[in-house]
Amino acid sequence: MYGLTEFLKSNSRSIPKQIATKCEGREHNWSQFEDRVSKLASALKKLGIQDGERAAILALNSDRYLEYYYAVWWAGGAVVPLNVRWSVGENAYSLNDSGAKVLFIDKAFASMIDPLQRDIEGLETIIFMDDDAPDGVIQYEELIASHQRCPDAERSGRDLAGLYYTGGTTGFPKGVMLSHEAIWYNCMAGSGLFDFGADDTYLHAAPMFHLADGGLSGTATANGLCHVFVPAFEPVAVMNALAEYQVTHAVLVPTMWDMIINHPDFDKNSFRTVQSAMYGASPMPEGLLRQILEQLPNVALVQGYGQTEMAPVITALAAGYHSKKGMEDGLLASAGRAVLGAEVRICDEDGNDLPNGEVGEIVARSPGSMLGYWGMPEATAATLNDGWVKTGDGAYRDDKGFIFIVDRMKDMIVTGGENVFSSEVENVISTHPDVAAVAVIGIPSKQWGEEVHAIIIPAEGKEPTLEEITAHLEDRVANYKRPRSMTLRDDPFPLSGAGKVLKRELRAPFWDGQDRQVS
Amino acid sequence: MYGLTEFLKSNSRSIPKQIATKCEGREHNWSQFEDRVSKLASALKKLGIQDGERAAILALNSDRYLEYYYAVWWAGGAVVPLNVRWSVGENAYSLNDSGAKVLFIDKAFASMIDPLQRDIEGLETIIFMDDDAPDGVIQYEELIASHQRCPDAERSGRDLAGLYYTGGTTGFPKGVMLSHEAIWYNCMAGSGLFDFGADDTYLHAAPMFHLADGGLSGTATANGLCHVFVPAFEPVAVMNALAEYQVTHAVLVPTMWDMIINHPDFDKNSFRTVQSAMYGASPMPEGLLRQILEQLPNVALVQGYGQTEMAPVITALAAGYHSKKGMEDGLLASAGRAVLGAEVRICDEDGNDLPNGEVGEIVARSPGSMLGYWGMPEATAATLNDGWVKTGDGAYRDDKGFIFIVDRMKDMIVTGGENVFSSEVENVISTHPDVAAVAVIGIPSKQWGEEVHAIIIPAEGKEPTLEEITAHLEDRVANYKRPRSMTLRDDPFPLSGAGKVLKRELRAPFWDGQDRQVS
Repeated sequence: MYGLTEFLKSNSRSIPKQIATKCEGREHNWSQFEDRVSKLASALKKLGIQDGERAAILALNSDRYLEYYYAVWWAGGAVVPLNVRWSVGENAYSLNDSGAKVLFIDKAFASMIDPLQRDIEGLETIIFMDDDAPDGVIQYEELIASHQRCPDAERSGRDLAGLYYTGGTTGFPKGVMLSHEAIWYNCMAGSGLFDFGADDTYLHAAPMFHLADGGLSGTATANGLCHVFVPAFEPVAVMNALAEYQVTHAVLVPTMWDMIINHPDFDKNSFRTVQSAMYGASPMPEGLLRQILEQLPNVALVQGYGQTEMAPVITALAAGYHSKKGMEDGLLASAGRAVLGAEVRICDEDGNDLPNGEVGEIVARSPGSMLGYWGMPEATAATLNDGWVKTGDGAYRDDKGFIFIVDRMKDMIVTGGENVFSSEVENVISTHPDVAAVAVIGIPSKQWGEEVHAIIIPAEGKEPTLEEITAHLEDRVANYKRPRSMTLRDDPFPLSGAGKVLKRELRAPFWDGQDRQVS
Repeated sequence: MYGLTEFLKSNSRSIPKQIATKCEGREHNWSQFEDRVSKLASALKKLGIQDGERAAILALNSDRYLEYYYAVWWAGGAVVPLNVRWSVGENAYSLNDSGAKVLFIDKAFASMIDPLQRDIEGLETIIFMDDDAPDGVIQYEELIASHQRCPDAERSGRDLAGLYYTGGTTGFPKGVMLSHEAIWYNCMAGSGLFDFGADDTYLHAAPMFHLADGGLSGTATANGLCHVFVPAFEPVAVMNALAEYQVTHAVLVPTMWDMIINHPDFDKNSFRTVQSAMYGASPMPEGLLRQILEQLPNVALVQGYGQTEMAPVITALAAGYHSKKGMEDGLLASAGRAVLGAEVRICDEDGNDLPNGEVGEIVARSPGSMLGYWGMPEATAATLNDGWVKTGDGAYRDDKGFIFIVDRMKDMIVTGGENVFSSEVENVISTHPDVAAVAVIGIPSKQWGEEVHAIIIPAEGKEPTLEEITAHLEDRVANYKRPRSMTLRDDPFPLSGAGKVLKRELRAPFWDGQDRQVS
């Protein structure tokens, strides 16, 4: 029970002839998909991948990425999906740290094969996921063709399913250990947020290494959806894929939404078959959200909030609240309510529950809670206690159970002794018509310690002034939260692999040579 | 994890001021509800209810019935909800069999207190759920008032949560052992079928001892709905409750739907606030279903198919298929697809998987699978294997994964939502001196779906009447199990090669031209 291969076997049993994956002209039904997975698993077992041994992957989105996940689980191993934005050094770190014996890699990362092969001692086998494998590297399709099916290892429950590296923006990545049960639970919880039909199709638009996609990907498999793919996010490619494959469900992070909705070739008709789409992984500026709702009134939007340590979903704002009434009730600024089976506490620094309305740290527990950080007992003990995960996110809860996230604790700006949560200010600025995107950071101030600074990407042909922005904020946020200075910027914001704005990089030029003290 | 009190504690933490229950003028919010449950649990612990010890209940629907469930779990005990239609003899059997130390009983069953107290040795305490408790019986509210809160026992996972008695082919009801995890999973799976809002209200219309209500009741708690109640099903009372409490969700078995829709005072306006309603527990005649869809086009109907041994849900026909297209596709006759996390196989007699389209027995597995039958290792071994439950229901699956139930493999009659095992009734009838042989079958009934019919071969020179047979059954089996009609027969019964009575042949003349739909 709670084994991730159960979903696959169920599909192969109940809907064997329905299409499982469509990618670059390849098409496999669930029976064929299981067959390929089982043969690839045979090969992996020979390569030592069983009993929780790790097989990593560094690749763009494709049907083979999905096969990789299930083949590793079928063999009894654990997946290690690597961040596609990482440098060779970061990849090498995670491969070494995880002790992966096998690495799947595709042609987009071919140039990394040599250095990785050279630097990583434990890495015994590299599997090349495209044609024309370089010397010394095994070709993916040949591996499948040369092996027979094997029985499912039937790993389940608290067995290790994968190491999901996180925290790359704040130092060394940590390998979050997720069990079969944790991801299984996420598939259940995610499923409760959507209405899936027998002929639905899921588009992998966000990178498959990340749980923003990985979470709903499992839900899609569990519900027997057809999986389709874009190799990497690009607004026009996504719109084309939505239309070509008659996609019904997708996940897009806020920056992706921004790039689509504000693209000169934005075509709402490409969303014609899309019933439901999830957003999450970073704060959604309310102005952008209203824009999406206006442009795509027939798409049921669902917000997911979570983190890798929770596999990942913790709360969700259901589609029903993305409505006129939801707006009036102020719920668009909320991350929604705890998903079923997740317990959410709002705690003070000593771990005591705070009453509704007070801001504290979100501490969550569910069957999705991580097993811990790989090889880091101290970091684990600091974060995980009896299944309860300290998220590091600051939030309050209203009396109907809606959670309002005010910011990452560590991103908080402290100005003149007052706490300012960036996302609150960003939300309001984003509703100004001349603003395309905004990031609010703290910059050094002799007088206040930090002062609030806004970096704004203006809307096409606009040039908002600090006075205009400040006037817009009047009556909306307290004076101390309003930016004291402002930068206009044309380039897009630097993003992490998960699509989060890299605030650290935005702050760097202001803080050059100075310590930023946040307490 | 997977503990049923988690849902309650989550509500008390996140929505303490929202109303949990409304009943006969009483109203408690989730904070008060938890408080009452915790105090009642203190009392139960003193009465020996902890570590899986059993506390039974025989009562009509009320807020206190819901408190009973959570108090027993909070104390660490296991619930034993008794069938309100049972005779004293059947209740005594289940109380003895379960070894219940405590019995909750309300005024509707006051007349049973004396005989049960007299006959059942292990029954130490009776708790009276209304005012004016008889002598020697503890009063419910006094028990709460006289105890302090205690900590939750935090039972979870595979810990026993309850014994749910179900009709027995052997003639005696079997106690289905369900774990916390099994019911927890059912709450998750059920939740995926509905779209719950923060202000929704669930009506307990079906009896609370039965998992048709019990399953969705847990889902309602898990989603923080307000619970409201009718003591027992009565069409006008249900319609009044729907309107008075602005009910959004309910479960009604097909006979209840029939009695409402065809009631002379049927008022569709009473369903004004109902968003979604589930039906199940017995076959829904397609004509009735179409009638409901026509009369109540704004109610999203969901069909659930399951059985107690699966806690109970196995498959569901989602609201979206209760549509014109669903009708055209013939899906209204389907029990839907496996709910998320449930694996469903269609097997031949040797347990091999059959291809789609072929009729075999439904064999299902999920975290909802029972732990076994209480004290019946042989019956358990015959039904449960590695989590897989043989349902006794015959069905086929189409290529989109929809299950069509065609027959009960077990010799069972479903009349008005209640299961009647033929052999139990046959066993008792066969003890009548005028009866040489008897076969009990289900024949079509507009009101009940099926009704119980007895075919009797009389003893030499005898001619028993329906009245005599019914009188013989009184005090021995519940009223709903007694035959409503009877045929006398001289010829021996048609037998299979193995010497089994060929019930199919006996049924044929009654069902000529009619499908026997079992769901």
